[in-house]
Amino acid sequence: MIRWNNDYNHGAHPAILSALQNTNEQSYGGYGLDEWCEKAAALIKAQLGGANADVHFLLGGTQANFTVINAALRPYQGVICTESGHIHVHETGAIEHGGHKLHVLKGVVGKLTAEAVAAEAQAFLNSGVKEHITQPKLVYISFPTEFGTVYSKQELEALADVCRRYRLYLFVDGARMGYGLAADGGDVTLADIARCADAFYIGGTKCGALMGEAVVLMNDDLKENFRSYIKQNGGMLAKGWLLGLQFATLFEDGLYFSITEQAVRDAMRIRDAFLERGIPFHMESPTNQQFAVLDEKQMETLGAKHIFEYIAPAGEGRHCVRFCTSWSTRPEDVEELIKDIKAL
Amino acid sequence: MIRWNNDYNHGAHPAILSALQNTNEQSYGGYGLDEWCEKAAALIKAQLGGANADVHFLLGGTQANFTVINAALRPYQGVICTESGHIHVHETGAIEHGGHKLHVLKGVVGKLTAEAVAAEAQAFLNSGVKEHITQPKLVYISFPTEFGTVYSKQELEALADVCRRYRLYLFVDGARMGYGLAADGGDVTLADIARCADAFYIGGTKCGALMGEAVVLMNDDLKENFRSYIKQNGGMLAKGWLLGLQFATLFEDGLYFSITEQAVRDAMRIRDAFLERGIPFHMESPTNQQFAVLDEKQMETLGAKHIFEYIAPAGEGRHCVRFCTSWSTRPEDVEELIKDIKAL
Amino acid sequence: MIRWNNDYNHGAHPAILSALQNTNEQSYGGYGLDEWCEKAAALIKAQLGGANADVHFLLGGTQANFTVINAALRPYQGVICTESGHIHVHETGAIEHGGHKLHVLKGVVGKLTAEAVAAEAQAFLNSGVKEHITQPKLVYISFPTEFGTVYSKQELEALADVCRRYRLYLFVDGARMGYGLAADGGDVTLADIARCADAFYIGGTKCGALMGEAVVLMNDDLKENFRSYIKQNGGMLAKGWLLGLQFATLFEDGLYFSITEQAVRDAMRIRDAFLERGIPFHMESPTNQQFAVLDEKQMETLGAKHIFEYIAPAGEGRHCVRFCTSWSTRPEDVEELIKDIKAL
Amino acid sequence: MIRWNNDYNHGAHPAILSALQNTNEQSYGGYGLDEWCEKAAALIKAQLGGANADVHFLLGGTQANFTVINAALRPYQGVICTESGHIHVHETGAIEHGGHKLHVLKGVVGKLTAEAVAAEAQAFLNSGVKEHITQPKLVYISFPTEFGTVYSKQELEALADVCRRYRLYLFVDGARMGYGLAADGGDVTLADIARCADAFYIGGTKCGALMGEAVVLMNDDLKENFRSYIKQNGGMLAKGWLLGLQFATLFEDGLYFSITEQAVRDAMRIRDAFLERGIPFHMESPTNQQFAVLDEKQMETLGAKHIFEYIAPAGEGRHCVRFCTSWSTRPEDVEELIKDIKAL
Repeated sequence: MIRWNNDYNHGAHPAILSALQNTNEQSYGGYGLDEWCEKAAALIKAQLGGANADVHFLLGGTQANFTVINAALRPYQGVICTESGHIHVHETGAIEHGGHKLHVLKGVVGKLTAEAVAAEAQAFLNSGVKEHITQPKLVYISFPTEFGTVYSKQELEALADVCRRYRLYLFVDGARMGYGLAADGGDVTLADIARCADAFYIGGTKCGALMGEAVVLMNDDLKENFRSYIKQNGGMLAKGWLLGLQFATLFEDGLYFSITEQAVRDAMRIRDAFLERGIPFHMESPTNQQFAVLDEKQMETLGAKHIFEYIAPAGEGRHCVRFCTSWSTRPEDVEELIKDIKAL
Repeated sequence: MIRWNNDYNHGAHPAILSALQNTNEQSYGGYGLDEWCEKAAALIKAQLGGANADVHFLLGGTQANFTVINAALRPYQGVICTESGHIHVHETGAIEHGGHKLHVLKGVVGKLTAEAVAAEAQAFLNSGVKEHITQPKLVYISFPTEFGTVYSKQELEALADVCRRYRLYLFVDGARMGYGLAADGGDVTLADIARCADAFYIGGTKCGALMGEAVVLMNDDLKENFRSYIKQNGGMLAKGWLLGLQFATLFEDGLYFSITEQAVRDAMRIRDAFLERGIPFHMESPTNQQFAVLDEKQMETLGAKHIFEYIAPAGEGRHCVRFCTSWSTRPEDVEELIKDIKAL
Repeated sequence: MIRWNNDYNHGAHPAILSALQNTNEQSYGGYGLDEWCEKAAALIKAQLGGANADVHFLLGGTQANFTVINAALRPYQGVICTESGHIHVHETGAIEHGGHKLHVLKGVVGKLTAEAVAAEAQAFLNSGVKEHITQPKLVYISFPTEFGTVYSKQELEALADVCRRYRLYLFVDGARMGYGLAADGGDVTLADIARCADAFYIGGTKCGALMGEAVVLMNDDLKENFRSYIKQNGGMLAKGWLLGLQFATLFEDGLYFSITEQAVRDAMRIRDAFLERGIPFHMESPTNQQFAVLDEKQMETLGAKHIFEYIAPAGEGRHCVRFCTSWSTRPEDVEELIKDIKAL
Repeated sequence: MIRWNNDYNHGAHPAILSALQNTNEQSYGGYGLDEWCEKAAALIKAQLGGANADVHFLLGGTQANFTVINAALRPYQGVICTESGHIHVHETGAIEHGGHKLHVLKGVVGKLTAEAVAAEAQAFLNSGVKEHITQPKLVYISFPTEFGTVYSKQELEALADVCRRYRLYLFVDGARMGYGLAADGGDVTLADIARCADAFYIGGTKCGALMGEAVVLMNDDLKENFRSYIKQNGGMLAKGWLLGLQFATLFEDGLYFSITEQAVRDAMRIRDAFLERGIPFHMESPTNQQFAVLDEKQMETLGAKHIFEYIAPAGEGRHCVRFCTSWSTRPEDVEELIKDIKAL
């Protein structure tokens, strides 16, 4: 069986295992205060177009999301996100557990629009009963989104403009950042993200690392005592250099970018195979996640050899399912899948 | 100027001020452990059809809502409510501040339907990733709703059935309970509420008291150590007998019911006047809140003598506004308003 | 039986009941935005020596404590208090429930010393692992303390100096403020409190009102959006003018001061009677609470006519008990108690 | 320089790196639902004397502590621990951040006594104002303690007896469990821990793994929906098998026990060297942490070649410092340190 169900079903890029092996005899200082974290931070900052950033290494996406949001907001402030936002639908209410309301807005192909954000922020300002409602203060977007779609540079800048106008923080969940930057037809760079966002993270877990997310803080207001939030929220790894080492490996010589680009190229070939076969998508995605709509016969046929993820019924006996490529996708598996799609 | 903007703009029914006066020389035990709280609880229980209830006196609606919900739920459990639910739109995110997610469903004239609740509960059971999402565990409804509408006995029983089937708590916000029970054409009694709900409260603030809500716990699971929750959440009045005394006064000889019934009769006369004048409502309400849709000229004319509450634009230059009657409404003011409506 | 067990066992000063009666026909705006709250705030500010203050009216002490502390602190910051601090021993962990650690220091007759505070603040600064520990950021003291003792002006200024040096907020719980200001031999005025503290409150519940605490914010950093915290924490009374009206009554013509001064004079006479009789105190108190140490025979004799509060065993078959006077203490009851003490 | 400052300064036991290498081509299910987690759980359960346990793999100690405690307690319940408890002094107030008060008791060489726990539990039962104070409900101990000391089987059983008598949960922080079980003169087995505790964890981070703690739940009340708590608190690793794989490696053939036993043997040789040289300890420890009291000259001399951790001043110009051995300690480094101690 070949697993396409997600992009976190293999260990780590071989270069990372080698790095672990090579440093295993060495001893390091604890809690992220070590030379590997320093080096990884420097390599990441070199991609940000010169802006002044703080970089911290956390363990996973849910943790990164609630730690940043808890650090950014006061208790009466809330988060704007789409109805498909990961924090809304897939993190067991961790943001609310931290005390914050979500202002859930309708997205367009999984994306927040600058107009919708402006309307929500303006509605608060217009309200005559401000102390009875939560103040939207942070905008959460995913790049790419949970549907694999991406913001264009123009869309991102429009969001950033609205956020500055209304003094909202813009926070980008980049659990799949590498795949987003490599999007087919995309025009956004890491430096664009850094220029537009107040905080974001660069996903390692789904992009070549064993685990780990690099949280990048751009806005000075978010930087103070951020390590206290990490520790209090359980995200401070004793052997912090293990995270720094992985990101240093990924950002040395552009490995992070090359492996995610390859995964997107693979995904585009799979997308094309579905389209040629006349199989539609729930949403068209230019990144590593493909949400195809199959009938039950097709599911059964493909399911004999391939593991994919069930998403939701799509009406008329059809179903939306997800196929993911990743840094670990093998060329021969792509060929096999394409062959099987064609034969449906 | 005559105030119709809300139902909490006057002090208290004269009988309550007399009771305060008559007991002011008397000393009492603190924190709700006194003879007046006991008496008030007994009077309330006598209305509940014999079921075994615990009664506690809290200070206000927001406090009652988050105290009950915090006591009922574990951190990973959430609350089902409508998009107009008071806890969702008007309490500064107090439920989320307490750590709980709201599952916001579309209401029908402000009411949750049993079908929508069942669908949400079933969706959780069907989910393959239960630990990644919050478990709906409590259903919050308002009786009457924020739009003044009321559940019929049948609707209430249908909700209670669904809640029992899915092991959800049913919690009724009764900030305006008196007006709901007196609803024009309504068929729900306090004993029905007690039979259907796991917890509810009987509003005093808007129904004759200076302040105070009587929280009634029906389900034994919610009763244990509830006083600890009250204290921890800041709801334990040192001079607790002041609340007991007010509710004892209101529930002695049915005063609570008679004054809210009169208010609803007044509201029905105002409703009829609007309808006769051809003025529509945002939603038809059989209780003390009337949400009329006025044009700007009408607003100006009525606004010269009457204070009403602005709710929202209603399109085509018209606006939804609220007129409330209450226990403190004076007959001559009702006549005046009706006369002015007719003259529009 | 005569109740001396606490200072919240009677309703309200007659002037307050009259004020309620006189305004009961009047209608007011809700949620503390009314002319009485405005007037009360102005009367209070007039006592503060000209400093720029915000005044808010909350319902009780626990609520005032956690609302101010939640508004002042970030999640990784903690509160310094004594081991007898009310927030530590008598509020069901409400501060921790709000997410904040208490740094509990040994007090001297119930008081924090400037030295102890400085040592705790310096220990944090000296720590090499700041992100692993909570940052002390707010100093909580009670005036008078839970043992009835008071800070001298010099002690208060020393605390304020330390707080400024270490950038800590100084917050004064004034649930019994009136009795503290009237302390026998005391030299602290409300203007001194305002000058030294970043926030404090003036207790109404125990000093003549039905209920209510006037929270005074001096530090501008604490003022922003404080009403959002009040609402979110359940402290925003719908009929807010009821609190403003009470404080306006108490601060018109100095009633607050005269009634608490009388209570302290009564307490001093009771204290002297105990001392003359050779009965010691757990701690000497110059305010309205007297903590006498009685043997069991004495407890039984006095207990036949007087209700007092049991505090703790005091060794050798003796027990610490509390006698409180208050604004509601009747002269004839004082005479009776003194007579009975003498006859022990 | 040789690092003795802590026991988490090297990567992982070579067997773990090999296991990572050997499985890297393999794909697995996510979030801890995989064959390695299953196998590791089975291997751990085989050590527990047959009792029925649930095993979950979390990422670190702070996270394990607050996740278990948040799952076990209601908001008004608190945790009993010593003044040196890790949750009290070294986790940035994470337990309070989760809403729970610590009841901090004096320890004896870092250990809680059954008597002290019983007294605290009884004091709550005796209190006349239970709803004003937090209910102690969970007892937190560390095995070994933060000072390296261990409970004897008799002490552990006495604590368990008290906990059962007062219906308290007993929770054992086993971040250094391996070293505790290997304690010089110790008589406690993992089966003893399982028999006495309601929940505990087996530390991986400090005992051979890259990271990870195996949380073992014995009491059925704690098992329900525990995965929801893990996810909500950010502890659910996407590639969960990485944790299972490590623990399976450590518990296959007793590796966990053999490597920690060796570390304790090394520590005992270092302890003896200090004692022979006449250098005292802050507390005598039979495990891998040795808290020696050095003068400044000795610190300087040893510091030229060895990195150790500064703990606290010890009076008269001397200082308490920590030397740790671990699974990664090299024999030649032990010889070097012993030689250097002898030469002091």
